Amino acid sequence: MPEPSSPSTALQEFRKSIDNLDATLIYVLAERFRLTKRVGEYKRDNGLPSSDKGREAEQIERLKTLAREADLDPEFAERFLRFVIDEVICHHERIKSEPG
Amino acid sequence: MPEPSSPSTALQEFRKSIDNLDATLIYVLAERFRLTKRVGEYKRDNGLPSSDKGREAEQIERLKTLAREADLDPEFAERFLRFVIDEVICHHERIKSEPG
Repeated sequence: MPEPSSPSTALQEFRKSIDNLDATLIYVLAERFRLTKRVGEYKRDNGLPSSDKGREAEQIERLKTLAREADLDPEFAERFLRFVIDEVICHHERIKSEPG
Repeated sequence: MPEPSSPSTALQEFRKSIDNLDATLIYVLAERFRLTKRVGEYKRDNGLPSSDKGREAEQIERLKTLAREADLDPEFAERFLRFVIDEVICHHERIKSEPG
Protein backbone atom coordinates (compact mmCIF):
# COMPACT_ATOMS: atom_id res chain seq x y z
CA MET A 1 0.00 0.00 0.00
CA PRO A 2 1.47 3.36 -0.91
CA GLU A 3 2.49 5.64 1.94
CA PRO A 4 0.06 8.60 2.16
CA SER A 5 1.65 12.06 1.86
CA SER A 6 2.25 13.70 5.20
CA PRO A 7 -0.17 16.62 5.77
CA SER A 8 2.57 19.21 5.47
CA THR A 9 3.88 17.68 2.21
CA ALA A 10 0.38 17.83 0.67
CA LEU A 11 0.04 21.50 1.61
CA GLN A 12 3.55 22.23 0.32
CA GLU A 13 2.68 20.65 -3.03
CA PHE A 14 -0.45 22.82 -3.42
CA ARG A 15 1.51 25.90 -2.44
CA LYS A 16 4.28 25.21 -4.95
CA SER A 17 1.68 25.06 -7.75
CA ILE A 18 -0.01 28.24 -6.46
CA ASP A 19 3.38 30.00 -6.43
CA ASN A 20 3.98 28.97 -10.06
CA LEU A 21 0.56 30.30 -11.10
CA ASP A 22 1.20 33.55 -9.20
CA ALA A 23 4.47 34.06 -11.10
CA THR A 24 2.49 33.55 -14.34
CA LEU A 25 -0.10 36.11 -13.22
CA ILE A 26 2.58 38.70 -12.40
CA TYR A 27 4.34 38.28 -15.76
CA VAL A 28 1.08 38.39 -17.74
CA LEU A 29 -0.03 41.49 -15.80
CA ALA A 30 3.37 43.10 -16.50
CA GLU A 31 2.91 42.48 -20.23
CA ARG A 32 -0.67 43.78 -20.07
CA PHE A 33 0.55 47.05 -18.48
CA ARG A 34 3.26 47.36 -21.17
CA LEU A 35 0.49 47.26 -23.77
CA THR A 36 -1.85 49.63 -21.94
CA LYS A 37 1.08 52.06 -21.55
CA ARG A 38 1.28 52.15 -25.35
CA VAL A 39 -2.50 52.58 -25.55
CA GLY A 40 -2.19 55.50 -23.10
CA GLU A 41 0.48 57.14 -25.28
CA TYR A 42 -1.65 56.56 -28.35
CA LYS A 43 -4.69 58.10 -26.66
CA ARG A 44 -2.65 61.12 -25.52
CA ASP A 45 -1.21 61.65 -29.01
CA ASN A 46 -4.65 61.39 -30.63
CA GLY A 47 -6.57 63.41 -28.03
CA LEU A 48 -8.69 60.44 -26.93
CA PRO A 49 -10.16 60.18 -23.39
CA SER A 50 -8.43 57.89 -20.84
CA SER A 51 -11.57 55.87 -20.20
CA ASP A 52 -13.84 54.18 -22.78
CA LYS A 53 -17.05 52.96 -21.15
CA GLY A 54 -18.23 51.04 -24.23
CA ARG A 55 -14.98 49.09 -24.49
CA GLU A 56 -15.00 48.41 -20.71
CA ALA A 57 -18.55 47.02 -20.83
CA GLU A 58 -17.55 44.69 -23.69
CA GLN A 59 -14.45 43.52 -21.80
CA ILE A 60 -16.47 42.79 -18.66
CA GLU A 61 -19.12 40.78 -20.53
CA ARG A 62 -16.48 38.80 -22.41
CA LEU A 63 -14.48 37.97 -19.26
CA LYS A 64 -17.62 36.94 -17.37
CA THR A 65 -18.39 34.48 -20.19
CA LEU A 66 -14.82 33.12 -20.11
CA ALA A 67 -15.02 32.88 -16.29
CA ARG A 68 -18.23 30.79 -16.49
CA GLU A 69 -16.53 28.43 -18.96
CA ALA A 70 -13.57 28.06 -16.58
CA ASP A 71 -15.74 27.62 -13.44
CA LEU A 72 -14.51 30.92 -12.00
CA ASP A 73 -17.06 33.13 -10.23
CA PRO A 74 -18.08 35.68 -12.93
CA GLU A 75 -18.67 38.36 -10.26
CA PHE A 76 -15.08 37.88 -9.11
CA ALA A 77 -13.88 38.16 -12.73
CA GLU A 78 -15.76 41.45 -13.05
CA ARG A 79 -14.27 42.84 -9.82
CA PHE A 80 -10.82 41.71 -10.97
CA LEU A 81 -11.11 43.46 -14.33
CA ARG A 82 -12.47 46.60 -12.63
CA PHE A 83 -9.45 46.53 -10.28
CA VAL A 84 -7.04 46.32 -13.27
CA ILE A 85 -8.88 48.89 -15.43
CA ASP A 86 -8.94 51.43 -12.58
CA GLU A 87 -5.15 51.15 -12.35
CA VAL A 88 -4.83 51.51 -16.14
CA ILE A 89 -6.98 54.67 -16.22
CA CYS A 90 -4.82 56.10 -13.44
CA HIS A 91 -1.72 55.38 -15.59
CA HIS A 92 -3.38 56.95 -18.66
CA GLU A 93 -4.09 60.14 -16.71
CA ARG A 94 -0.43 60.24 -15.65
CA ILE A 95 0.76 59.73 -19.27
CA LYS A 96 -1.51 62.58 -20.43
CA SER A 97 0.24 64.98 -18.09
CA GLU A 98 3.66 64.01 -19.51
CA PRO A 99 5.14 65.58 -22.66
CA GLY A 100 4.42 63.54 -25.84
CA MET B 1 7.27 54.24 -48.02
CA PRO B 2 5.02 51.89 -46.04
CA GLU B 3 1.50 53.07 -45.33
CA PRO B 4 1.18 53.93 -41.62
CA SER B 5 -1.53 52.03 -39.73
CA SER B 6 -4.74 53.97 -39.37
CA PRO B 7 -5.27 55.16 -35.79
CA SER B 8 -8.20 52.82 -35.24
CA THR B 9 -6.27 49.81 -36.57
CA ALA B 10 -3.37 50.49 -34.20
CA LEU B 11 -5.75 50.67 -31.23
CA GLN B 12 -7.54 47.50 -32.39
CA GLU B 13 -4.23 45.63 -32.54
CA PHE B 14 -3.33 46.62 -28.96
CA ARG B 15 -6.80 45.66 -27.78
CA LYS B 16 -6.66 42.25 -29.43
CA SER B 17 -3.43 41.49 -27.55
CA ILE B 18 -4.90 42.81 -24.29
CA ASP B 19 -7.96 40.57 -24.80
CA ASN B 20 -5.69 37.54 -25.27
CA LEU B 21 -3.78 38.34 -22.09
CA ASP B 22 -7.06 38.83 -20.20
CA ALA B 23 -8.24 35.37 -21.28
CA THR B 24 -4.93 33.99 -19.96
CA LEU B 25 -5.43 35.81 -16.65
CA ILE B 26 -8.97 34.43 -16.25
CA TYR B 27 -7.88 30.84 -16.94
CA VAL B 28 -4.86 31.05 -14.64
CA LEU B 29 -7.02 32.57 -11.89
CA ALA B 30 -9.58 29.78 -12.39
CA GLU B 31 -6.85 27.17 -11.93
CA ARG B 32 -5.50 29.04 -8.87
CA PHE B 33 -8.97 28.93 -7.26
CA ARG B 34 -9.25 25.21 -8.04
CA LEU B 35 -6.05 24.70 -6.06
CA THR B 36 -7.01 26.98 -3.18
CA LYS B 37 -10.35 25.13 -2.97
CA ARG B 38 -8.36 21.95 -2.28
CA VAL B 39 -6.21 23.84 0.23
CA GLY B 40 -9.42 25.01 1.94
CA GLU B 41 -10.72 21.44 2.15
CA TYR B 42 -7.36 20.28 3.48
CA LYS B 43 -7.36 23.02 6.12
CA ARG B 44 -10.92 22.16 7.16
CA ASP B 45 -10.10 18.44 7.42
CA ASN B 46 -6.97 19.13 9.48
CA GLY B 47 -8.41 21.86 11.70
CA LEU B 48 -6.10 24.55 10.30
CA PRO B 49 -7.07 28.27 10.27
CA SER B 50 -8.27 29.81 6.97
CA SER B 51 -5.61 32.50 7.02
CA ASP B 52 -1.83 32.06 7.44
CA LYS B 53 -0.13 35.43 7.98
CA GLY B 54 3.40 34.02 7.67
CA ARG B 55 2.66 32.40 4.32
CA GLU B 56 0.92 35.58 3.08
CA ALA B 57 3.90 37.76 3.99
CA GLU B 58 6.23 35.39 2.11
CA GLN B 59 3.95 35.42 -0.95
CA ILE B 60 3.79 39.21 -0.99
CA GLU B 61 7.58 39.63 -0.74
CA ARG B 62 8.16 37.05 -3.47
CA LEU B 63 5.65 38.62 -5.85
CA LYS B 64 7.03 42.11 -5.25
CA THR B 65 10.48 40.80 -6.26
CA LEU B 66 9.05 39.16 -9.39
CA ALA B 67 7.15 42.37 -10.19
CA ARG B 68 10.35 44.44 -10.01
CA GLU B 69 12.06 41.99 -12.39
CA ALA B 70 9.13 42.33 -14.83
CA ASP B 71 8.90 46.16 -14.54
CA LEU B 72 5.50 45.93 -12.88
CA ASP B 73 4.77 48.33 -9.99
CA PRO B 74 5.49 46.21 -6.85
CA GLU B 75 2.84 48.11 -4.89
CA PHE B 76 0.28 47.12 -7.51
CA ALA B 77 1.46 43.49 -7.28
CA GLU B 78 0.93 43.61 -3.51
CA ARG B 79 -2.57 45.07 -3.85
CA PHE B 80 -3.37 42.46 -6.51
CA LEU B 81 -2.27 39.55 -4.30
CA ARG B 82 -4.17 41.02 -1.32
CA PHE B 83 -7.28 41.23 -3.54
CA VAL B 84 -6.93 37.54 -4.51
CA ILE B 85 -6.03 36.29 -1.00
CA ASP B 86 -9.03 38.09 0.54
CA GLU B 87 -11.28 36.20 -1.89
CA VAL B 88 -9.53 32.91 -1.08
CA ILE B 89 -9.97 33.39 2.70
CA CYS B 90 -13.65 34.10 2.10
CA HIS B 91 -13.91 30.79 0.17
CA HIS B 92 -12.04 28.94 2.94
CA GLU B 93 -14.48 30.23 5.54
CA ARG B 94 -17.35 29.00 3.36
CA ILE B 95 -15.75 25.56 2.95
CA LYS B 96 -15.29 25.31 6.73
CA SER B 97 -19.03 25.69 7.24
CA GLU B 98 -19.76 22.82 4.80
CA PRO B 99 -19.71 19.14 5.81
CA GLY B 100 -16.33 17.44 5.14
